[in-house]
Amino acid sequence: MKSLIVGQSGGPTSVINGTLAGVYYEAKKIGFDKVYGMRNGIEGLLDDRIVDLDEYFKDPNNLELLKRTPSSFLGTCRYKLGSIKDNEETYEKIFSILDKHSIDSFIYIGGNDSMDTVESLSDYALEKKKRQNFIGLPKTIDNDLPITDHCPGFGSACKYIATTIREVIQDNNCYGVTKPTVAVVEIMGRHAGWLTAASALARDESCCGVDAIYLPETGFNMDNFLKGIQELLKKKPSIVIAVSEGIKTEDGKYICELIDSNLMVDSFGHKELVGCAESLCKVLKKELGVKTRAITLSTLQRAAAHIASKTDLDEAYNCGKKGADLAYRGESGKMVIMKRVSDNPYKIKYEVFDDIHEIANIEKKIPLEWIDLKNNYVKDELINYMRPLIQGEVKQIYKNGVPQHITIKK
Amino acid sequence: MKSLIVGQSGGPTSVINGTLAGVYYEAKKIGFDKVYGMRNGIEGLLDDRIVDLDEYFKDPNNLELLKRTPSSFLGTCRYKLGSIKDNEETYEKIFSILDKHSIDSFIYIGGNDSMDTVESLSDYALEKKKRQNFIGLPKTIDNDLPITDHCPGFGSACKYIATTIREVIQDNNCYGVTKPTVAVVEIMGRHAGWLTAASALARDESCCGVDAIYLPETGFNMDNFLKGIQELLKKKPSIVIAVSEGIKTEDGKYICELIDSNLMVDSFGHKELVGCAESLCKVLKKELGVKTRAITLSTLQRAAAHIASKTDLDEAYNCGKKGADLAYRGESGKMVIMKRVSDNPYKIKYEVFDDIHEIANIEKKIPLEWIDLKNNYVKDELINYMRPLIQGEVKQIYKNGVPQHITIKK
Repeated sequence: MKSLIVGQSGGPTSVINGTLAGVYYEAKKIGFDKVYGMRNGIEGLLDDRIVDLDEYFKDPNNLELLKRTPSSFLGTCRYKLGSIKDNEETYEKIFSILDKHSIDSFIYIGGNDSMDTVESLSDYALEKKKRQNFIGLPKTIDNDLPITDHCPGFGSACKYIATTIREVIQDNNCYGVTKPTVAVVEIMGRHAGWLTAASALARDESCCGVDAIYLPETGFNMDNFLKGIQELLKKKPSIVIAVSEGIKTEDGKYICELIDSNLMVDSFGHKELVGCAESLCKVLKKELGVKTRAITLSTLQRAAAHIASKTDLDEAYNCGKKGADLAYRGESGKMVIMKRVSDNPYKIKYEVFDDIHEIANIEKKIPLEWIDLKNNYVKDELINYMRPLIQGEVKQIYKNGVPQHITIKK
Repeated sequence: MKSLIVGQSGGPTSVINGTLAGVYYEAKKIGFDKVYGMRNGIEGLLDDRIVDLDEYFKDPNNLELLKRTPSSFLGTCRYKLGSIKDNEETYEKIFSILDKHSIDSFIYIGGNDSMDTVESLSDYALEKKKRQNFIGLPKTIDNDLPITDHCPGFGSACKYIATTIREVIQDNNCYGVTKPTVAVVEIMGRHAGWLTAASALARDESCCGVDAIYLPETGFNMDNFLKGIQELLKKKPSIVIAVSEGIKTEDGKYICELIDSNLMVDSFGHKELVGCAESLCKVLKKELGVKTRAITLSTLQRAAAHIASKTDLDEAYNCGKKGADLAYRGESGKMVIMKRVSDNPYKIKYEVFDDIHEIANIEKKIPLEWIDLKNNYVKDELINYMRPLIQGEVKQIYKNGVPQHITIKK
């Protein structure tokens, strides 16, 4: 009798349930007798809130629905476990709950902060000679995990962003002869500009693409920004720019802080950034007298399963399968990563990274040599890196005119 | 030798180009030798900016791309022609340009304001015994044109809204055990709440749907709103509500005016409403201490051709064909309308409405008996009215991982 528990943590994505589906499918196939899910990650586990996934996924149709359901089916959390020495009681509680249910293996699907949890639990188990092993599976729309070529979730967010930007450009361009118009599209990404860079994927022979891209990797200068927009407006009356929510002035101030310094801070100490596009629009209207429109993609970009990338969903699923396999073999403190074998044809292999310490809490940013500073754009290397990740579409299951999902019972 | 000119006016939609495609296809088939397009509606026509549509659409593949391209291919305008007696010079200029190009028929695709233009030009032609005839074709995401059962453009916006809301609900629900969260989704519609009501289409057996809907047809009361949200939060920790950008307090104040009265006014004298969701979130945070997220669907809802409704696109195309037919037969001052023959099975017939005076400048609102005031929701009659309009998907033409469009040359 071998049992596995799987959890989802951090911000949701369009395909994090694809990874869950892969874990469940492979775990059952490989020989785990029980596959449990923890509700709301480690936070729910601490309250002993667990579900037997057979209840939902013995029916393979439901597994197909799961792959098409955005956000975290099991619920998520942003719970920070804290250091072992200051929180031994919490660690012991987790292991006692795992023991109570005779759980052997633990898989956590998440980003940097979640890998921190996997690392700590694995370290603790090793130190205290616990029987459980711990595996991390990558997930984040932000693509900011190091070591892995990219993260499941990123490709689908890119596909949504590229598609939406093309539609925004068509919309913005239709008012030709009236007042110059600047649409500012705000895209997620606090410190890494990967998602904002995906706006470059909108450009091809059938679409002019965004006119400028502002990334958090490079210092933002308001004077240069206004000059740049003025130059663009000399060439065409309607422009669309993409900005990261995390762009900062050279002295480290977020744009929205220039307007409103009363920012909230989340439980990880990250600043909650809001209104970057709104802030820029206010400045553009005041300084250049142009018509503006702030468009904030908000959670839509991480939940738009209806336009998920098939490549991304397949990879998310495969990471899940690989994770179940590692768990079964008793590996611990390891994360599944993707290595790119070639760009054209695009080929990925799934590997295991041994030292999760190197992954937790490190944010991978866009290499500066992939950024075209002069033109406020990105270089072809970056576009070639992203393009394969948005290929292919996932056939949705429609009913009542809307895509169907599967939802966990309360 | 018979010639037709077609223009697009007002806010774009996902399928207004479907109507243009229908006009072009039928006009060529029925016997028009030339089919011109005016750039940016009547405003471009006044500058003699016209294009021969054969240049683009002799290739039927391009006509298929046109049907899948959101926004107005020809460009649009918000030009108000003004009364005949005060603007005779402008009217004469228009007819001289039409005469110069030997144009016999004029088709204008648009909403209330555009029908006003068709009405005025048709009246003028009649009065001055001009040879040209004028036909109006319905278009608006807002669904606020009277007489016609509904408007092309509305169904696709509904499908986008219902799909997106389902994804937002999945996203919002995943943070279960932390702070209560209210997501406020702001939807277009100044005076008519049709689009906001479409959020009700998100609910079915696989999705709980939005928890409340606030429409501009009924007076908004902040105290009742806060009480209602508090009641909802007693039942579940995560709620999602849909609000129209145009909701007003009982004494006629827009919500955003309660926060910021410095509103802009567009050329038709309509107030530019911004930040209704943001405003409500501020109040909710302050008064109830909940976590909030404002999501504004912005132009995405009128441009999301990637998830257009097939029913809507087909109807838009058919309206275009019918318009070309009327134009060829020399009808004038008329608009194509849709009449619903039955709900189940859904059946529409295309008719001609003779008195465009009755259509121009009248806004059709949701009948009060279709609104469930007690539960801040809509009644089944309204859901049954909308549901058929979002059925069916349009197969996109993907290249480079993104849907392809066709764009007019400068």
